[in-house]
Amino acid sequence: MMKIGVIGFGVVGSGVYEVIRKNRESIARKAGQEVDIKYILDIRDFSDHPEKELFVKDFDTMVNDAEVGIIVEVMGGLDPAYEYTKRALCAGKHVVTSNKELVATYGDELLALANKNGVSYLFEASVGGGIPIIRPLNQCLAANEISAIVGILNGTTNYILTQMFKNGKDFDVALKDAQEKGYAERNPAADVEGYDACRKICILSSLAFGKHVDYREVYTEGITALTLRDIAYAEEMGCVVKLLGYSKLLDDGRIDIKVAPMMIPNEQPLATVSDVYNGIQVRGNAIGDAMFYGPGAGKLPTASAVVADVIDIAKAPERAGRVMWVRTDEKLVLPADEACASYFVRVETADKNAVSVSAKAEFDGATIIDKFDNELGILTGCMSEGELKGKLSNLPGKVIGFLRVLPQA
Amino acid sequence: MMKIGVIGFGVVGSGVYEVIRKNRESIARKAGQEVDIKYILDIRDFSDHPEKELFVKDFDTMVNDAEVGIIVEVMGGLDPAYEYTKRALCAGKHVVTSNKELVATYGDELLALANKNGVSYLFEASVGGGIPIIRPLNQCLAANEISAIVGILNGTTNYILTQMFKNGKDFDVALKDAQEKGYAERNPAADVEGYDACRKICILSSLAFGKHVDYREVYTEGITALTLRDIAYAEEMGCVVKLLGYSKLLDDGRIDIKVAPMMIPNEQPLATVSDVYNGIQVRGNAIGDAMFYGPGAGKLPTASAVVADVIDIAKAPERAGRVMWVRTDEKLVLPADEACASYFVRVETADKNAVSVSAKAEFDGATIIDKFDNELGILTGCMSEGELKGKLSNLPGKVIGFLRVLPQA
Repeated sequence: MMKIGVIGFGVVGSGVYEVIRKNRESIARKAGQEVDIKYILDIRDFSDHPEKELFVKDFDTMVNDAEVGIIVEVMGGLDPAYEYTKRALCAGKHVVTSNKELVATYGDELLALANKNGVSYLFEASVGGGIPIIRPLNQCLAANEISAIVGILNGTTNYILTQMFKNGKDFDVALKDAQEKGYAERNPAADVEGYDACRKICILSSLAFGKHVDYREVYTEGITALTLRDIAYAEEMGCVVKLLGYSKLLDDGRIDIKVAPMMIPNEQPLATVSDVYNGIQVRGNAIGDAMFYGPGAGKLPTASAVVADVIDIAKAPERAGRVMWVRTDEKLVLPADEACASYFVRVETADKNAVSVSAKAEFDGATIIDKFDNELGILTGCMSEGELKGKLSNLPGKVIGFLRVLPQA
Repeated sequence: MMKIGVIGFGVVGSGVYEVIRKNRESIARKAGQEVDIKYILDIRDFSDHPEKELFVKDFDTMVNDAEVGIIVEVMGGLDPAYEYTKRALCAGKHVVTSNKELVATYGDELLALANKNGVSYLFEASVGGGIPIIRPLNQCLAANEISAIVGILNGTTNYILTQMFKNGKDFDVALKDAQEKGYAERNPAADVEGYDACRKICILSSLAFGKHVDYREVYTEGITALTLRDIAYAEEMGCVVKLLGYSKLLDDGRIDIKVAPMMIPNEQPLATVSDVYNGIQVRGNAIGDAMFYGPGAGKLPTASAVVADVIDIAKAPERAGRVMWVRTDEKLVLPADEACASYFVRVETADKNAVSVSAKAEFDGATIIDKFDNELGILTGCMSEGELKGKLSNLPGKVIGFLRVLPQA
């Protein structure tokens, strides 16, 4: 019998409870032993819960109980999750988490601490909700050297973008719709500004490339500036616009990593990932491209990933403590201005002809898209962002903005 | 140091050799020990190979060598792969295979034999080429009870269907094209008649539902009868036609399982899987729907899956021998006539009006599609295949054929 303690009885915590109760038999069969919840830690009152005797208010109760083998940390945030996790690992408990902020910030330290104490620190649920991606990267694709990861990692923004595309809703209207459906928080910044996707692409990159990628160094652009005109241009170009986490290992060992809305040609698999779904594409030197698709958030999908980690530990508790990435002093992240791509640029102008002539001179082989009054769209060839910005300042018009086109790997 | 013996130096075997040579360092890091090839068994002459000393012609050499820990069986077919696998497992060697025919036929027996001998029998490469699907089903989705699996499991037929759809090629022309590109065999029956997909959906179903599903009991229909008219109807209905392996666990414990070309609405994720790619959708009671996408065949992708299994064993050889499914006497497979779906029916007739009136009477709420001379298309509501066939015989016209519409899960 493997007994677990759950920290946090919010959406994910209550989902973990539900999955463990509902699938008790099949979980026991797969884990090779019964898995049961001994404690649930939450500061709120659950005295009317059918299993109210499980609830405790003091972390000491579970961390000091020798019967507890796994602590499931699904409270989110750094404080007190960071301290609790360290104490649990030091007490010889395995820890399973869905906490992307904690893994992105202290993953290297917590993995090393787990290793030192002969226990596991697993975090399948921190990226992609229920989609299996951490274990596939770490295990199923172990024969590959991974060269790139591109993902739609945030369901909220993907829902908003899908509404803009399919139903012609403005960003503000689509956001409000997402909030009403419970897909977006009242304060949506973490999603729409790309911060959530940034934590996730950093976790995936750290895992794939073996070195801690600090999310504070990663260029992050959200979707708040996108308008229906951008969408209209994308449709004309046979593309969709998706908020992507993009990470590519370069030959010199640096990583071209960013979060930004990008144009993706319709025929690419990621272009078909709609609504609140997530999709993560991985390129390996043996498999080529694989994609993992599914619900990127939600109570039961996320709980599914948490409980899979719990089963994995229960099945073989002794197989633990493998450090998966280390912190280095190297300058890992390629400066944004050195990254190369094609770009879609919008320029406001009363003199389309002048802008068109200038764009063709500045951007060799550029495609001009004339679709609206008083502005032109320009699709450039491949160049660095630094070069792009220099050339944009030469155009005889006002640059409204630009979008990257997903580079061919 | 984990030493392996490879049986068969064809496409997959030479890919395994290449991946192990190319990614030697990262494989050693992930496996926790070096992995090297000690023998390659092939009856052909490789005396001009740069590592010709690895080649042997006698299975006894590798199975009797105590240094060999894992035998990689990538020769395909039942004879002598079945005997070699049994001998290897009995000699205490782990076995990794890409041999779908062997796993589909004797999987239960070989898994039990592995269990008895305290070793592993792993077969990630037997389904979906490089796509991680066996381990996700078995491990990443372990918190779920799986209720359905639907997959595009054969790259050859998917390429042919994509050519028919996108380039308007006839089946025969598309097949010839696939043969010229090396995607189809000179004798293409195993692919185009659906036999290959049938082995694979049976392996996935056995794994997901825990009971051996005998492929000889599974209704299997290929794509040889499809014409460009079927494609034209599908387009008109906002669908594509894909060869699907379909498997759904029913409430009474039986399995609705079949291989057949089906209509899929364009907005479904599987509809977007084109060319030689495979896509496998899995429904679990916690995650909902997840999809795994990637190259379903090919030298390096398949080798990627084989070597992932090798690494898994090398990382923890003691964690082995878990039986994953058993053979039962139950009638597991639902008779084809009892399975329910909507259907698209084509009827040849000189009197469209009579067929239309009759179809509307027979099929409550049927949609009539009038697109070609001398025939009508009918989209029916949901009913059993037995019921469908009864009603079709009442129509005043000649039934050209029918296609199932992918049932909503």
